[in-house]
Amino acid sequence: MVEVEVAPPRAHEVRVKIVCTSLCHTDLTFWRMKDFPAMYPSILGHEAVGPHTKVNLTVGWHGNFRRRFVSQTPSVVESVGDHVEEVAPGDTVVPVFLPQCGGCADCLSPRSNICSALSYRPGLMPRDGTTRFSLAATGEPVHGFLSVSSFAEYTVVDVAHVVRLGGSALPPEKACLLSCGVSTGVGAAWKVAALEPGSTVAVFGMGTVGLAVAQGSKMRGAKRIIGVDLNPDKFEIGKRLGVTDFINPNDTGEKTVSQVIKEMTGGGVDYSFECIGSTSVMAEAFESSRTGWGKTIILGTDTAAAPVSISSSAIKRGRSVTGALLGGIKPKDDIPVLAQKCLDKELELDEFVTHRMGFDDINRAFDLLAQGKCLRCIIWMDGAEQKKAGA
Amino acid sequence: MVEVEVAPPRAHEVRVKIVCTSLCHTDLTFWRMKDFPAMYPSILGHEAVGPHTKVNLTVGWHGNFRRRFVSQTPSVVESVGDHVEEVAPGDTVVPVFLPQCGGCADCLSPRSNICSALSYRPGLMPRDGTTRFSLAATGEPVHGFLSVSSFAEYTVVDVAHVVRLGGSALPPEKACLLSCGVSTGVGAAWKVAALEPGSTVAVFGMGTVGLAVAQGSKMRGAKRIIGVDLNPDKFEIGKRLGVTDFINPNDTGEKTVSQVIKEMTGGGVDYSFECIGSTSVMAEAFESSRTGWGKTIILGTDTAAAPVSISSSAIKRGRSVTGALLGGIKPKDDIPVLAQKCLDKELELDEFVTHRMGFDDINRAFDLLAQGKCLRCIIWMDGAEQKKAGA
Repeated sequence: MVEVEVAPPRAHEVRVKIVCTSLCHTDLTFWRMKDFPAMYPSILGHEAVGPHTKVNLTVGWHGNFRRRFVSQTPSVVESVGDHVEEVAPGDTVVPVFLPQCGGCADCLSPRSNICSALSYRPGLMPRDGTTRFSLAATGEPVHGFLSVSSFAEYTVVDVAHVVRLGGSALPPEKACLLSCGVSTGVGAAWKVAALEPGSTVAVFGMGTVGLAVAQGSKMRGAKRIIGVDLNPDKFEIGKRLGVTDFINPNDTGEKTVSQVIKEMTGGGVDYSFECIGSTSVMAEAFESSRTGWGKTIILGTDTAAAPVSISSSAIKRGRSVTGALLGGIKPKDDIPVLAQKCLDKELELDEFVTHRMGFDDINRAFDLLAQGKCLRCIIWMDGAEQKKAGA
Repeated sequence: MVEVEVAPPRAHEVRVKIVCTSLCHTDLTFWRMKDFPAMYPSILGHEAVGPHTKVNLTVGWHGNFRRRFVSQTPSVVESVGDHVEEVAPGDTVVPVFLPQCGGCADCLSPRSNICSALSYRPGLMPRDGTTRFSLAATGEPVHGFLSVSSFAEYTVVDVAHVVRLGGSALPPEKACLLSCGVSTGVGAAWKVAALEPGSTVAVFGMGTVGLAVAQGSKMRGAKRIIGVDLNPDKFEIGKRLGVTDFINPNDTGEKTVSQVIKEMTGGGVDYSFECIGSTSVMAEAFESSRTGWGKTIILGTDTAAAPVSISSSAIKRGRSVTGALLGGIKPKDDIPVLAQKCLDKELELDEFVTHRMGFDDINRAFDLLAQGKCLRCIIWMDGAEQKKAGA
């Protein structure tokens, strides 16, 4: 733990105070990646704030000092740089790893959520390639992660990475879940599959993303949702979120999971979702999809960025494979819609919050995630606020 | 060449007289396949007809006597079996390798053109698994191919494999082109891509399918159509069908074709079509597609049914891969629409007919196709009709 300075926001940037945050499996995945572009110490969180003043910032080093973590963080705007009109100090916002500039060909098209104006610069601010963090002791620059940075009390993000929740009364615990995993899963069913009522679905991997796929599929009227996971405990929570059938790959005997799914559904599901990040599971998800119109949607991130292998003859029989970041949703357009669905109780997030703790316990949260023992662990930056929220 | 008996049609079957036929590269592809389910002598064509009487039937043996060829054939119904109400003797029809029963979940859905009621039985009639052909000399059964069979004066097909052209005045030469290659290409742009006006397109392989993709893309308002072929002669005909730019993979120096395409288009095309049947070209077509919404459509058949390898991280950035048989069109619904487009001069087929010959010259037609020297070679079964047609 060291102190870090957080510089004020430059043009098109916003400095925000984090209220609470949660851990996402992507944090672990990136941490485990071997060849991700080098990044310097991993900020897991920080406290206090001040333009160009030393702040008490919690910084964690992982592995060889090359990793840092993005958080899922509802936050309050503290100050804004020039040309920022979209948000003002005091606004409640959700920082998101995926930008939405609003003006590029992709942002203007309903077909894409991959903003082509702001390209990702590992560890740096997207517009000028610098960082707003530096070690207080030495002045050495500290990098960010995925353009959001950090389990921290304060961070600086580009305005393209900030979603304003407006007057939403959504509790911070829930708002933070919408910035990554839950939106990825619900969005995949809603935006990428555009799932029709009565569809059949297979979900490979029942972590937060997979369970959110199940919930999104249920919201869209899926008639059958088959969950696949090695952990039998996942079926109980899955059932509460819409999963109708459960397959444990350890229990299928001589058959592959896709063979079992084909038998259960008379030929394969309409939609299969890969929520693990394993190319062999991606191939199995493809095999589980139906001839004619079966669609496989890849949401997991393979740590080795390995290729996925698809039968060139099977795909010619009307099947397709696609993938998405953040479930194909456009952050600024769609996260407020999801927030409203939460307020309307159409989207239930309570099941996803399995643990809550204070900032000091963040390493325990990482352990729980690595062991598959939690879905979302909410980290409250300020114990008083945690108490106030009754969490 | 031997004589073969053609039995009368059974229930749900139609016996038809072939007027003219053309060769499709799929014929060559299947002929070259090593492991296709065993099929007995290859019927390349036949003459005369009669229920249970000997007919003068031209049969060609290829390789180890295991291959036969489907044709693209407009034909006239000679007789029908029980329960056939859709067509009557004298109707002009196009036999098609892809069935459309009209009643299964796939036929009833706009999303699929892969009829799930009639599964393909190699060399046999789809409903009862028998054949209508037998050698006149010995009575030995002769198998069909792809449920249509044959370069032949007469053949028997299931009614699900027959498209009625009704009162269409479309000349037979053109009608026969709609039963496979041209429909595959035009359909892929129309049905699978559902290509938007102003789109950019890359077409890998400028045979009949690829050129038909170009024409279909032009019909849909594509602003840029990049043709890729090793044969520089293809650019001239390509230009007449809508190709705006040409890349010869032999001329790209250190760069890959996808790199060149990305430079030409500022990041990749909206739609890339693989019309060759090579998994390495499929991967290159994928690489040529744009992040955000790029779609790769596989139309070629890999002779080894090899897998195609796709980057699991690239596909997560909003890209997709799909494939289609017959360009995603439903034969009975969509071929009449294409026939009308031909009559309205919206779809021009003249460019595809590069050679015409009589039935006796059919092996020369195979040679031309194998050497890449023709697009479509029309085989007239009857020289008098050929003369009458002015071909």
